[in-house]
Amino acid sequence: MPKNRETSTVLFYLLPILFLISCVKSNIDVEQERAALLKTDREFAQASVDHGVVEAFKMYLTEDAIQLPQNSQPHFGKQAIAEAMSADAQMTLTWQPQKAEVAKSGDLGYTWGTYEVKVPNPDGGERTGYGKYLNIWKKQPDDSWKVVVDMGNQSPPPEGTP
Amino acid sequence: MPKNRETSTVLFYLLPILFLISCVKSNIDVEQERAALLKTDREFAQASVDHGVVEAFKMYLTEDAIQLPQNSQPHFGKQAIAEAMSADAQMTLTWQPQKAEVAKSGDLGYTWGTYEVKVPNPDGGERTGYGKYLNIWKKQPDDSWKVVVDMGNQSPPPEGTP
Repeated sequence: MPKNRETSTVLFYLLPILFLISCVKSNIDVEQERAALLKTDREFAQASVDHGVVEAFKMYLTEDAIQLPQNSQPHFGKQAIAEAMSADAQMTLTWQPQKAEVAKSGDLGYTWGTYEVKVPNPDGGERTGYGKYLNIWKKQPDDSWKVVVDMGNQSPPPEGTP
Repeated sequence: MPKNRETSTVLFYLLPILFLISCVKSNIDVEQERAALLKTDREFAQASVDHGVVEAFKMYLTEDAIQLPQNSQPHFGKQAIAEAMSADAQMTLTWQPQKAEVAKSGDLGYTWGTYEVKVPNPDGGERTGYGKYLNIWKKQPDDSWKVVVDMGNQSPPPEGTP
């Protein structure tokens, strides 16, 4: 024990407090993070409706995001993804997440869900496509969630679709 | 301070040690886990070659895994996934992971990569398909990594393919 009685008393009470803080700090509220990620994916889908799919992807993807699109090679980086999607800028894409999960450390998570895409026909009207997606998300330094990997594929139309 | 000098001495030296242990315990070696996940995905691909795709999926998926296959509704649970894949049991599916990432907590990760599928033709010979996949993995109680979400989609043949 240190000779100085005051110092040893302070340390004696300080150390267990530091010990507790170190435990509490690592206890991220995973359920809260999961809910935040699900909410972010819904806001991402709403941004796609409000601002168009290209703007929404610019808002919610990291600079180094990867896209794995159907019938295409991967696109590397937000810039390349936005350029590729600009070719289909007239489409209306929206989606509903079905599930979100988050790591205990709260830095990595995923969502998957179903999408609907409406593409205008050259002769008027539009056709609707259906599919699924799987997104990997990373927690950002500003505490927001952003997409690092985006993948999708087509589904048959839901039963009962005319 | 406790009256008993021996007790207080033991506590004085024990508490900082506990404090350090709590810090070290939360420091999972993410790089080591990332390498282990990449290795597991390669072993999964090798199992697909050695034992067939259905057996490999039975070995490397969790019971409650989800599959998001192209041109199909999602399959929920390993049993349903194995049954759906049994219809294509004659195909030879293999893949090469391109990237793995793991959460700081070491409990959740993903891999993505490219696959090749060879399907025998009814009149002899075979045709080759190409695609990409994105898998979500969860660390299991026995310290192994298992797939909880499996998604894939088709790609055009690589450039230079005859």
